[in-house]
Amino acid sequence: MKLLTYRIGDKVSFGVLAADGVIDGAETLGGEATSIRELLERDLTGRLERLSAGREATHSLAEIEYLPPVPDPAKILCVGVNYVDHREETGHVDKPEHPTVFSRFADTQVGHEQPVVHPPNTRQLDYEGEVAIVIGRHVSVIETDADARAAIAGLSCYNDLSARDWQLHNSQWLPGKNFRGVGSFGPYLVTMDEFDDLGSVRLTTRVNGELRQDATLDQLVFDFTAILGYVTGFTSLAPGDVIATGTPGGIGLAANPPRLLAPGDVTEIEVSGVGILRNEVVAAREDSR
Amino acid sequence: MKLLTYRIGDKVSFGVLAADGVIDGAETLGGEATSIRELLERDLTGRLERLSAGREATHSLAEIEYLPPVPDPAKILCVGVNYVDHREETGHVDKPEHPTVFSRFADTQVGHEQPVVHPPNTRQLDYEGEVAIVIGRHVSVIETDADARAAIAGLSCYNDLSARDWQLHNSQWLPGKNFRGVGSFGPYLVTMDEFDDLGSVRLTTRVNGELRQDATLDQLVFDFTAILGYVTGFTSLAPGDVIATGTPGGIGLAANPPRLLAPGDVTEIEVSGVGILRNEVVAAREDSR
Repeated sequence: MKLLTYRIGDKVSFGVLAADGVIDGAETLGGEATSIRELLERDLTGRLERLSAGREATHSLAEIEYLPPVPDPAKILCVGVNYVDHREETGHVDKPEHPTVFSRFADTQVGHEQPVVHPPNTRQLDYEGEVAIVIGRHVSVIETDADARAAIAGLSCYNDLSARDWQLHNSQWLPGKNFRGVGSFGPYLVTMDEFDDLGSVRLTTRVNGELRQDATLDQLVFDFTAILGYVTGFTSLAPGDVIATGTPGGIGLAANPPRLLAPGDVTEIEVSGVGILRNEVVAAREDSR
Repeated sequence: MKLLTYRIGDKVSFGVLAADGVIDGAETLGGEATSIRELLERDLTGRLERLSAGREATHSLAEIEYLPPVPDPAKILCVGVNYVDHREETGHVDKPEHPTVFSRFADTQVGHEQPVVHPPNTRQLDYEGEVAIVIGRHVSVIETDADARAAIAGLSCYNDLSARDWQLHNSQWLPGKNFRGVGSFGPYLVTMDEFDDLGSVRLTTRVNGELRQDATLDQLVFDFTAILGYVTGFTSLAPGDVIATGTPGGIGLAANPPRLLAPGDVTEIEVSGVGILRNEVVAAREDSR
């Protein structure tokens, strides 16, 4: 099942992708859940799938504005330098013992097709295509692949957009990863039953149609189980929490010369089985800072 | 005015410290605000101060359990290596151009006198006494000292407790700074009108009564204006957001031999004009991980 969060007029809702559009989830469930976070918290995914089978779409896709599948996760964790080729291009030559983890605030996220405003105070805006995990239940211990699979509601595409100059001001990357609205997530949260072989899930990034990143999940340095095992060593996870699992080689900053993003550029992050997350970079209004 | 958040029985409320206890804030305001975050969001601090003048305490301090003044900030930002002596003891010999910023999740915070459970999976639990800023309004630009002062609701004590082994697994400190319940904040949020000369505000840390850290705010590498100017360069701040402004020299890990925390140890973080934030480190239950 492909879930999405969307705005139509003044209303924000969530729903199920159907052949002819989106089936409103809140309506289908008689109001028992009004967001994907609530859907997961109340364990209503199976019920929604049954009730939406054969139902007509509530809206066509042309009518809606995509929002991040989870607009307000309590925690967004990001794993850094988690593909060998990206470790090499960024000078990480050691074999790591532990995942590298930093975080984002929820207000850094925009949805599919929403514009990404180029912050006027960065000169190095860069893309990072990633596979995002959305957590489906409250978890505090993950040890096995089965634990990990049971903890994950589904997968999505993530663009961990980065202001490289701010990321590298000093050792801590948080500032460069937390510009308002500079990050994208979507279009769909695809439930785990649609992924048989996680290792073969393919992640590609294109900028203006040109392929820049291309990897499969079996190239992760730390796989989902290792990531979740490490993270639950210090924090608890809850339904709707997001973990962006790392970007492969091919970032703009590592190209020679660097190929960073400018207004007018269009990024596409594609995850097989999920779809394409597309965003255009736009210039900031002159009166903004 | 000294504000606090507390639990009494099953009820969580906030209030004003009085000579004879705490005056319930929600009751005093006729329910117009039920938390310090709402108080700040609705700009009711002045009204609460007027209405609580001369009022009798609702509860004695012996009856209440202190919670963090803001239990659920949308953002908790922490400034690292922001005192010269702490930079030196941790090998940061360069003069920094920008503040070092990382973050905490809200579930890492406990209140004054609440126990800090020593995580069984760290061997290097350490204290970091800090002065915390609580943001009082929505801000996206800070340039002057006057801007900074207007943005800050007040100050508090913070113990940015750190699992040093996890903090230093690799470049990103987040894991070591985000263990559940390993961080403390309080006891009071003291409004800015009570601080005339910020530079002379004194911060001291004691462990089992022994002085370990001692500094004044004029020793900060980046002062409040510089911190807020930098942070608002990438993110917006909102009422109730917290910024822990850094710890001075004297951390346990830097002592020779290291003087780390063990169950039974009592930390006290004192900020002049605020009070003492006291917590005991306790052993985890045997059945927890």
